[in-house]
Amino acid sequence: MQGKAAQLRELFDRQGIIRLVGAHNALGAKLAERAGFHGVWSSGLEISTSYVVPDASILTMSEYLAAAQSMAEAVTIPVVADCDTGYGNSTNVIHMVRKFEAAGVAAVSIEDKLFPKINSLVSGRQALAAMPEFVGKIMAAKNAQRDSDFMVIARVEALVAGCEQEEALRRARAYVDAGADAILIHNGSRSPQPIIDFVQAWEFSAPLVVVPTTYYTITAQDLEELGVKMVIYANHGLRASINAMLDVYREILETGSTASIEDRIAPLEIVFDIQGMPQLRRDEENYLRSGEPPT
Amino acid sequence: MQGKAAQLRELFDRQGIIRLVGAHNALGAKLAERAGFHGVWSSGLEISTSYVVPDASILTMSEYLAAAQSMAEAVTIPVVADCDTGYGNSTNVIHMVRKFEAAGVAAVSIEDKLFPKINSLVSGRQALAAMPEFVGKIMAAKNAQRDSDFMVIARVEALVAGCEQEEALRRARAYVDAGADAILIHNGSRSPQPIIDFVQAWEFSAPLVVVPTTYYTITAQDLEELGVKMVIYANHGLRASINAMLDVYREILETGSTASIEDRIAPLEIVFDIQGMPQLRRDEENYLRSGEPPT
Amino acid sequence: MQGKAAQLRELFDRQGIIRLVGAHNALGAKLAERAGFHGVWSSGLEISTSYVVPDASILTMSEYLAAAQSMAEAVTIPVVADCDTGYGNSTNVIHMVRKFEAAGVAAVSIEDKLFPKINSLVSGRQALAAMPEFVGKIMAAKNAQRDSDFMVIARVEALVAGCEQEEALRRARAYVDAGADAILIHNGSRSPQPIIDFVQAWEFSAPLVVVPTTYYTITAQDLEELGVKMVIYANHGLRASINAMLDVYREILETGSTASIEDRIAPLEIVFDIQGMPQLRRDEENYLRSGEPPT
Amino acid sequence: MQGKAAQLRELFDRQGIIRLVGAHNALGAKLAERAGFHGVWSSGLEISTSYVVPDASILTMSEYLAAAQSMAEAVTIPVVADCDTGYGNSTNVIHMVRKFEAAGVAAVSIEDKLFPKINSLVSGRQALAAMPEFVGKIMAAKNAQRDSDFMVIARVEALVAGCEQEEALRRARAYVDAGADAILIHNGSRSPQPIIDFVQAWEFSAPLVVVPTTYYTITAQDLEELGVKMVIYANHGLRASINAMLDVYREILETGSTASIEDRIAPLEIVFDIQGMPQLRRDEENYLRSGEPPT
Repeated sequence: MQGKAAQLRELFDRQGIIRLVGAHNALGAKLAERAGFHGVWSSGLEISTSYVVPDASILTMSEYLAAAQSMAEAVTIPVVADCDTGYGNSTNVIHMVRKFEAAGVAAVSIEDKLFPKINSLVSGRQALAAMPEFVGKIMAAKNAQRDSDFMVIARVEALVAGCEQEEALRRARAYVDAGADAILIHNGSRSPQPIIDFVQAWEFSAPLVVVPTTYYTITAQDLEELGVKMVIYANHGLRASINAMLDVYREILETGSTASIEDRIAPLEIVFDIQGMPQLRRDEENYLRSGEPPT
Repeated sequence: MQGKAAQLRELFDRQGIIRLVGAHNALGAKLAERAGFHGVWSSGLEISTSYVVPDASILTMSEYLAAAQSMAEAVTIPVVADCDTGYGNSTNVIHMVRKFEAAGVAAVSIEDKLFPKINSLVSGRQALAAMPEFVGKIMAAKNAQRDSDFMVIARVEALVAGCEQEEALRRARAYVDAGADAILIHNGSRSPQPIIDFVQAWEFSAPLVVVPTTYYTITAQDLEELGVKMVIYANHGLRASINAMLDVYREILETGSTASIEDRIAPLEIVFDIQGMPQLRRDEENYLRSGEPPT
Repeated sequence: MQGKAAQLRELFDRQGIIRLVGAHNALGAKLAERAGFHGVWSSGLEISTSYVVPDASILTMSEYLAAAQSMAEAVTIPVVADCDTGYGNSTNVIHMVRKFEAAGVAAVSIEDKLFPKINSLVSGRQALAAMPEFVGKIMAAKNAQRDSDFMVIARVEALVAGCEQEEALRRARAYVDAGADAILIHNGSRSPQPIIDFVQAWEFSAPLVVVPTTYYTITAQDLEELGVKMVIYANHGLRASINAMLDVYREILETGSTASIEDRIAPLEIVFDIQGMPQLRRDEENYLRSGEPPT
Repeated sequence: MQGKAAQLRELFDRQGIIRLVGAHNALGAKLAERAGFHGVWSSGLEISTSYVVPDASILTMSEYLAAAQSMAEAVTIPVVADCDTGYGNSTNVIHMVRKFEAAGVAAVSIEDKLFPKINSLVSGRQALAAMPEFVGKIMAAKNAQRDSDFMVIARVEALVAGCEQEEALRRARAYVDAGADAILIHNGSRSPQPIIDFVQAWEFSAPLVVVPTTYYTITAQDLEELGVKMVIYANHGLRASINAMLDVYREILETGSTASIEDRIAPLEIVFDIQGMPQLRRDEENYLRSGEPPT
């Protein structure tokens, strides 16, 4: 059986933009697979929110790892893990790569900010790591991986931190030289222009990844034509769920029953199907009592 | 500060039906609190689904406990934990009560089926535990608790298992005699009649709890008039989320961007607010560097 | 790199008895590797004791799994996991096999008692599972594994439960027919004779494993000559540690310092060496700051 | 029932030096209690070693928390948790205090080094945090605690980092002004003199704690006479266990059986007693089947 890392490599090697969607647990990953996404983004923002703690290195690697592993176990498509800054220095990155690889994750993304980080879309404190420090992390990560297909994505936060494009390019190039398998260029502006400018200036020594959370008018087709290789819709499942939950919660309290919402929530049969209950029933039939074994 | 168990006791002591809604993580619990529910049901069905495994004792107590604790830490309203059969025999129940109590959970519910159980709304195998065995579990649970306010809810599965009402009543009475603080009478029929019949035959030696997942036409007001003390909407947040996620996932793939869904998903500011980011920013201002301490 | 399951298969295929020693964490596994054992037994008795709970299915699969995974990550020799009864029925066994295999464990052992079990060396309640039920578990386990080298060891508790040798043989044969890769024949007598009798009556349709905790006078050489393939010293590291800790704890309190014990405890340099501190220091030198990457 | 934090406060309030011993799991804590120590030190060095990873912030708060909670659940004496640098900045410290307090820990100790830290007894990199930054952590911790008895111990690493005594005193005073409940003055020299000098220069605005791992000739009585309030023997149980395990492992391999070691390892009855098996048997008698409840 082909591993998840090899699967992701194949997606990078063939034609067409790769589309990932964010999740924070196995259920979100499973639904992403059912909907037809190429892969799952194990999202730091989503996981933090699921624990109701700020996306600011409050949760530890252990919770992010457990979530990513649970996703990887639930689906056949590759999971790419958002690993923030790598949870410390280069020695933490080495430990991290070993753990995420063993958990069946296909790739990790680490960003060039300081630990503890704060979410890139929160204004204020967005201090960058010194470039040599982050170059060391990339080299450490690439040296630590065991499966040569495993990918390390370097996330450049220079635009988020208010630097010029030249600094973003300088860093991206250094990270590719250090071994990064792809560059995630991030930005929090409403306009896609800064990202378009970056992409057009890029020499494509490594493929590009973008996360158009704020500049959402740009389409996957636009991005593909620009030469972007992977687009991540990082937290939309979570944000859809929040509104859906609040709506039905309020309606239950107002109407005094669930009668009015039954037609817009998943029926129990779908829930059981997602869980794998039909397979469990077959397993029970086959294995709960097996009579005498064949002789 | 009043504990969560005392809070739940107070809800049982005062007028009016108590309304709980199911959740599988801290986020669901937080939204339940914001919507105005009295408490949160840490749902076995929801938690299993979030891991994409059947609701059939496949996850262990450890995962259910971690989820319930995460909920209890995130909200100021009481959390009632669905503890299936108690995860084994009476000695497992003793261990379970100690762990859930220490996790800040206000009450546990255990059901009189055999371990490993299967979800009550799945047809087939729904074998009941012998009554003396379950009586032993109730006694063990009540003896194990440390805070006298902590509640043990006995869930009667006789109707689910196809028994007559008389058997359900006989068991409910025995569980109350053994110390159960409330009786959860469960059923999976479309009609509320079996539950109505049970409630009308009940002598109210202990308060009643119901979970109208399948017989959802009955309202909280109807239930309150019948004398039911607590109603649990056990899995509607999850089921709303599943549909919401599938919808936006498919729309993103079809339209090539998130532009068309932005107005129906929670904005990032709401997400950050739920996480507690504003408090984190205040904490950073106050404590990141504190100058010389006051002299 | 050869997997751990393949390594264990190789040990079974070549000449000579395989020697395992019990552990409850990565440290015990590491010391077993340093001492020269062929593999590590992730011991249910040891792990329970490390949590100070009875070895009676009080801990869940999750804690046993975490311990076994931690051991597997720390050593290059194979880890065989004591998985009690499989933590429930055949569907739990399927889930268990997937999890332990993904954790890097080379083999699991499951025993034909009822869940919740109690330690085999505690007198009293030792009820056996019906044979067809346990046959179903073996078939389920073998069907669930992904790597064909992964081994499922069937542990026969008939002698422990007070049955005659004939019953033990009947069960062992049925388990081999169901696919078991080896038979662990267990007993709690002082004399090795019941085990010797069993081994001499065995037709060797599958290799035998023994755990001479109580009948400890028999040597590995004796066992090898009888044809036993694997011997497990299941809990001696733990028991040595308990006495060692109690001794130094008492001496510190009595003498008022650690001066008198310093020469019989591991020096800090050894502790740091076991931790991997020298490698961390090299990693820091190489990766903490990497200057400009090579051009 | 008096809480563990109140118990620890009482020990600080009454006459006599408090004696703690290090542990890395519930078993070590239980043996410390049996031996007669006043409390348990949840040791970062021990816990790291039990996972076979360097004591250098490689494990996350989650593993340290789980270990400390497991200890606190197993014993009736207070547990003081070694929390390294607080696992990040002041916002991490706030999260940490909430979690450790909820876990039943009586006090936390945080040290004024940079995250990721490295063990104080390893030569090299031991950079101190800026004083205002650490003052902020102390204030954040004290403001975050819910039980007023909970203690925050400020660990001064100035001597470890090679600073003069004056710097150590200056920092200790600032930490007490910021709210620290006690000062842990640490050092890694063979001679107790630097610690004696510090203690003699201290004005005792807060009680002192020491960890005489390297300067072990000084006795508890000496320390008490100097005015030190708490002494921690931080890792001697672990180090005794390592030698004990290596010894029996090697002897088993050499002699081919455990016969020669049986008299120096804990008998199984002691192991079962530590686990709480006798209580489990009583619980089984009382609760496995409870007959008809009393009428």
